[in-house]
Amino acid sequence: MYKAKIHVTLRKSILDPKGKATHQALQNLGLNQINNVRIGKLIELDIHADSEDNARELAETACNQLLANEVMEDYQIEISDNSS
Amino acid sequence: MYKAKIHVTLRKSILDPKGKATHQALQNLGLNQINNVRIGKLIELDIHADSEDNARELAETACNQLLANEVMEDYQIEISDNSS
Repeated sequence: MYKAKIHVTLRKSILDPKGKATHQALQNLGLNQINNVRIGKLIELDIHADSEDNARELAETACNQLLANEVMEDYQIEISDNSS
Repeated sequence: MYKAKIHVTLRKSILDPKGKATHQALQNLGLNQINNVRIGKLIELDIHADSEDNARELAETACNQLLANEVMEDYQIEISDNSS
């Protein structure tokens, strides 16, 4: 069994209204040293596969078909072995 | 300048309806090898601080005051130096 961590982030060129609102709220709290807030998704999955490559392929299929919107988002997949 | 990546995840004991819906949708797509889907947030920030420790402290303050709901969520902070 493999664990996948998938980071889905908005592309740099796309405006991130949630991030902007969060940045404003942090400023209101006096945390002026913080800038450039972007908010993405972190998706954790368990994958039953017989190799790490197969697990990665399945995670990529899931991203392409459902988890990420490729027009606006980038994704990054980390696979770790959890067989123990 | 430091970059912080903050992973905010629902505690294991808390039901994750978004994750459940995503899991169901993946099953409907025929991706039956995927289980245990949990969806969290990935927050990326730039922090102006004079040391990594200060940057981490600021990120923790931001998490405690705004970014994470400590009753239901856990967070994990990764700081990287981006001065170059």
